[in-house]
Amino acid sequence: ANDLHHSCQWGSGIRWGDGPTDTGMQRLALSKDDKGVRDWFIQTMKDLKCNVTVDEMGNIFAVRPGRRADVPATFIGSHLDTQPTGGRYDGILGVLAGIEVIKTMNDMGLETEGGVGVVDWTNEEGARFPISMISSGVWAECIPLEHAHNLKEVPTVASLPTAASAPETMKSALQKIGYLGDVPCSYKSTPMAAHFEVHIEQGPYLVSANQRVGVVTAVQAYRWFRLNVIGRDTHTGTTAFEHRADALYAFAQMMVRAREVAASKGCLASVGIVEAKPGSVNTVPGEVSLSLDIRGPETELVVEVEKQLRTDFDAIAAAEGAGIGKPCRVEWTLDFDSPAVKFHDDCIDCVQQSAQAVVADASIADTKALVRTIMSGAGHDSVFTSKRVPTSMIFIPCKDGLSHHPEEFSTADDCATGASVILQAVVRYDRK
Amino acid sequence: ANDLHHSCQWGSGIRWGDGPTDTGMQRLALSKDDKGVRDWFIQTMKDLKCNVTVDEMGNIFAVRPGRRADVPATFIGSHLDTQPTGGRYDGILGVLAGIEVIKTMNDMGLETEGGVGVVDWTNEEGARFPISMISSGVWAECIPLEHAHNLKEVPTVASLPTAASAPETMKSALQKIGYLGDVPCSYKSTPMAAHFEVHIEQGPYLVSANQRVGVVTAVQAYRWFRLNVIGRDTHTGTTAFEHRADALYAFAQMMVRAREVAASKGCLASVGIVEAKPGSVNTVPGEVSLSLDIRGPETELVVEVEKQLRTDFDAIAAAEGAGIGKPCRVEWTLDFDSPAVKFHDDCIDCVQQSAQAVVADASIADTKALVRTIMSGAGHDSVFTSKRVPTSMIFIPCKDGLSHHPEEFSTADDCATGASVILQAVVRYDRK
Ligand SMILES: NC(=O)NCCC(=O)O
Ligand SMILES: NC(=O)NCCC(=O)O
Repeated sequence: ANDLHHSCQWGSGIRWGDGPTDTGMQRLALSKDDKGVRDWFIQTMKDLKCNVTVDEMGNIFAVRPGRRADVPATFIGSHLDTQPTGGRYDGILGVLAGIEVIKTMNDMGLETEGGVGVVDWTNEEGARFPISMISSGVWAECIPLEHAHNLKEVPTVASLPTAASAPETMKSALQKIGYLGDVPCSYKSTPMAAHFEVHIEQGPYLVSANQRVGVVTAVQAYRWFRLNVIGRDTHTGTTAFEHRADALYAFAQMMVRAREVAASKGCLASVGIVEAKPGSVNTVPGEVSLSLDIRGPETELVVEVEKQLRTDFDAIAAAEGAGIGKPCRVEWTLDFDSPAVKFHDDCIDCVQQSAQAVVADASIADTKALVRTIMSGAGHDSVFTSKRVPTSMIFIPCKDGLSHHPEEFSTADDCATGASVILQAVVRYDRK
Repeated sequence: ANDLHHSCQWGSGIRWGDGPTDTGMQRLALSKDDKGVRDWFIQTMKDLKCNVTVDEMGNIFAVRPGRRADVPATFIGSHLDTQPTGGRYDGILGVLAGIEVIKTMNDMGLETEGGVGVVDWTNEEGARFPISMISSGVWAECIPLEHAHNLKEVPTVASLPTAASAPETMKSALQKIGYLGDVPCSYKSTPMAAHFEVHIEQGPYLVSANQRVGVVTAVQAYRWFRLNVIGRDTHTGTTAFEHRADALYAFAQMMVRAREVAASKGCLASVGIVEAKPGSVNTVPGEVSLSLDIRGPETELVVEVEKQLRTDFDAIAAAEGAGIGKPCRVEWTLDFDSPAVKFHDDCIDCVQQSAQAVVADASIADTKALVRTIMSGAGHDSVFTSKRVPTSMIFIPCKDGLSHHPEEFSTADDCATGASVILQAVVRYDRK
């Protein structure tokens, strides 16, 4: 836990309290701060006698060798990048728990059959480069390397001090901080026996039920879109409503409708980025671009919401500007598609048994009630590793279920529990 | 008309056709291109034997002396700045018609009692520095010089190539292009006998009724606000709708409501600028800032719309985030207040008579029907000059009533009519 806050010196974000660790984090992928923490991570792992490699997506793999060199290592992985207004736990906990596990194994002189690795995946958040988990996606050969390398940072983030003035590509950003490695980014070049990940829940279930550990069995589906709404620039003072094709007014109606439709199907729909052009007080915006994030427990439900919204957005666009025969129109681009995922039974079993054992150690009356199975609302690198190797995850509670916010918080006890569970899970898996 | 397009070489904007003049304009106030056209304007006026002065707001006054030195000149004024996606007529026509008038007077050897001046007012659009007509406002002593000098450019425009990386103030922008003059900006230092302005209508009335000249008798009221909606950043994938305080969702509802309320009172309400923070696909925006422009034929109606929207926006904000006891809230800042204006009867009479005479020259059957009185939907520098000296305006038709758009267009004939009417109006006023 000390190491966790130590690693947060690179990219400390918005302050919310007086204590030394009472700040959020702003460590966008491949920023100067991300380089700082990467250098520290590599040095730390080398000091712990791990072998470190970096691949073409900047993923960092650090392996503590096992007895046998002919079997792949079992990995603990997560990410060190954060949201622009992120916290100290999302992702960071997972990598730091990995370091903790290696330290403990060294201290105990524990030998394993295969090696045990820790991996820092690049740009998991998708905040700077708008595809989340993109680098575990390339590793799993689900996303082409070329596509990832050419991906541009989002314009809103480009205004942050970490970024250059013109939008950068992932490849140029990797080069700039010296993390364009030469190991091919693939599960074939860097094989794994299994992938485990500990993460804060980012939702309210564990914390509100006073439960200590979530055994993650699945991840909900999501799709990310970029939309353009095209209308016509005109004067705000001289143009009657009937004579407008106001792209921002059309957007506003779309956003209201998106929540209605998503809610009616038990799904979520959210807009995080919006840009209106030309951006002048007295010009009706002729163009609006936005991000749309649709999620749901089943892939099919997300598809249904998308279908309905395509129809409804077209109707909203068609009505705005109809009076002048120049209706708005809307264009969709799918940036990222992450179908619903079920994790591997063997890994789930290892986590379940380890969780029971760890909370039992805490000697609380009804230990069973402290552990529950849970579905993840957020995506994680484990989504992509699960396409190639047995995978599962461990959740610990976080305050108010809040994340992607500077005040994101988990107690030191809960973090320690997470680290203990993943240590045991890895050892159990190694012995299978 | 040739001069008009000649002057558009500084800041040519978006191309919409193949012809040499088929582009819009992007000449933000005090940009490099604005400096270019200012330098040209001063040289042109000096070549026409005018005396040129520049005041502390960068307003440029060029005066052709009259017989008497003891009376103030009658001015023709407008502006050379444009919207980010503006056209070739809004403002530019008014200054260029002034040049045309001086040329014609010189050619005719026409002597006037008082002098005749042409003025280029700085930042009329309010597009870069978000107070429209700010420099005529300072001249009229309706806006304090200090306040104007400290006004910052809007962030959206800051990303345009014309602007520096950090938001600039008007004063530093004036200094940077060498247009911080030393004449005090005041109607006391630069007095006027009267102020006339010719402008494209920017609305559809003249063009759709096939009328040639609008005698402008009044200007509608408007208020410009900056609003901040404050909610809470959180994860888009793990946060149920009931657990959100989504500032952008609140904004969307507000914008839909604004149109409803304004329409119900015969007013307009428009959002031209919107910024959502932190601007990440998978973070629910915790803060949205926006511009709101409310207009109506009577000052009182604008006040009523504002009152209703304050109530309704509060209610919308209170509902979003109520589920977590952290409702959104909304803060209003009034940036600019322009009450409804009635122009001066003497000036209106001069314009009316001149318009009738000019269209009669065009020898069309029913000349009376070609001229109409009209109210302006947009603000103009004449709004502020009218607070201190007799003022009125002349409108000419423009295609589709479109402005603040690259395709803004008026025929050469209509521009020439406007110049003829203002020439006659100035001469008539001088002889009164
Ligand atoms: N855990 C997390 O916040 N991942 C980012 C990808 C997502 O938006 O779900
Ligand atoms: N004429 C004109 O577009 N003026 C700008 C001020 C306004 O928005 O009305």
